[in-house]
Amino acid sequence: MGTLAIAGLGPGDEALVTPEVSAALAAATDIVGYAAYVARVRPRDGLTLHPSDNRVELQRASEALQLASEGRQVVVVSSGDPGVFAMASAVFEALELQPQWAKLDIRVLPGVTAMLAAAARAGAPLGHDFCAINLSDNLKPWPLIEKRLRLAAEADFAIAIYNPRSSSRPEAFGRALDILNRAGCGERIVIFARAVSAPDERIETVRLCESRPEMADMRTLVIVGNSATRRVGRWVYAPRHAR
Amino acid sequence: MGTLAIAGLGPGDEALVTPEVSAALAAATDIVGYAAYVARVRPRDGLTLHPSDNRVELQRASEALQLASEGRQVVVVSSGDPGVFAMASAVFEALELQPQWAKLDIRVLPGVTAMLAAAARAGAPLGHDFCAINLSDNLKPWPLIEKRLRLAAEADFAIAIYNPRSSSRPEAFGRALDILNRAGCGERIVIFARAVSAPDERIETVRLCESRPEMADMRTLVIVGNSATRRVGRWVYAPRHAR
Repeated sequence: MGTLAIAGLGPGDEALVTPEVSAALAAATDIVGYAAYVARVRPRDGLTLHPSDNRVELQRASEALQLASEGRQVVVVSSGDPGVFAMASAVFEALELQPQWAKLDIRVLPGVTAMLAAAARAGAPLGHDFCAINLSDNLKPWPLIEKRLRLAAEADFAIAIYNPRSSSRPEAFGRALDILNRAGCGERIVIFARAVSAPDERIETVRLCESRPEMADMRTLVIVGNSATRRVGRWVYAPRHAR
Repeated sequence: MGTLAIAGLGPGDEALVTPEVSAALAAATDIVGYAAYVARVRPRDGLTLHPSDNRVELQRASEALQLASEGRQVVVVSSGDPGVFAMASAVFEALELQPQWAKLDIRVLPGVTAMLAAAARAGAPLGHDFCAINLSDNLKPWPLIEKRLRLAAEADFAIAIYNPRSSSRPEAFGRALDILNRAGCGERIVIFARAVSAPDERIETVRLCESRPEMADMRTLVIVGNSATRRVGRWVYAPRHAR
């Protein structure tokens, strides 16, 4: 009987991979995922790696379900957490298209998503109510993103911005900064967390009004603090109180 | 030289504790935290446990900083992730009050926060833009929570609700359901995830209009899907597309 685990590898450092995910990788016969994430799994005898290009999520998900239906022990790998802007939604979408796979043994294995790792490095910017918005998703119309940014500013959420500078929509982040500036967030503290937990990690914090689009690249997670977010020494945190 | 690590133990299952956190616990001389979380750390020679009551976060944080300043290897433990409605903000708040501790070696060690574990059990309800709102926080005025719920509904975020039925504010969740019903979210799918990853875990999914306050208790994390969130078999997921 085949199985399918949809697993999160965390932000990069092996010390942030959960034992549950490590056990699933150790028991797998097949690893399916975007090439950069499959490359994080150590090759061994009896393990077949199936790396694929970016932006073929549904095809990749169907491949994984097909392998599991043939009796393989399949792990679909994502960076971070598989349920946050990653492969889990695509697998369930593929499952809906192919009802014959409905009885497969499927598990989702959570991981440390990028915003949690970035927040930990910076201090505690997500210590109060917050939201997470993906700028890269080309399956979502821009006016909806704009509306969400405006409402998030009005709600005074801290805002984690995933994929601020994706190749599909490189201009999005500059437009997002404009919207937040116009919404009165200019004095808010912004954290640019690049390559968190990797050797070339870089954390930068500035005011929103000083933020420039080129401060983020494809490996950056951005956290916009709420209106009360403050510094203490090198740390940035959201106070537990709010008015 | 003392050190202070602010660590997340994940939702409960040991297989969800990161190796980074396990290593910090193994090297610690002192564990500080709410009694229920300190009880998850295995006692051993050379390790002093400092359990405390709920709602003394700032005092607990100061105690931890004091111990570190005396040269101890201190780990402050939280459930889930320490930066999400947990101890990290309190430690930085305490640090701000006591500038003499500014040079301490402090690290925040991320963990799998409850909403990620709950989402993984249910499918992928956080696969699209979402927010996280804490209903229990008695340091936040109710009108602000109400405003955030209304704006989150308008933004069509999935909404992770932490501490829906805390002892300090048991009526909050019923009021939150009323607000979301009035905001037109009655048909949305709601996940009640109780004691995720513990032996008595229970996952229940219903429409918002069918949700009742008593479906949540103090160990429940609630996720309200967005307007497109759907079921496939026993799973619930947010499609990657949005209009």
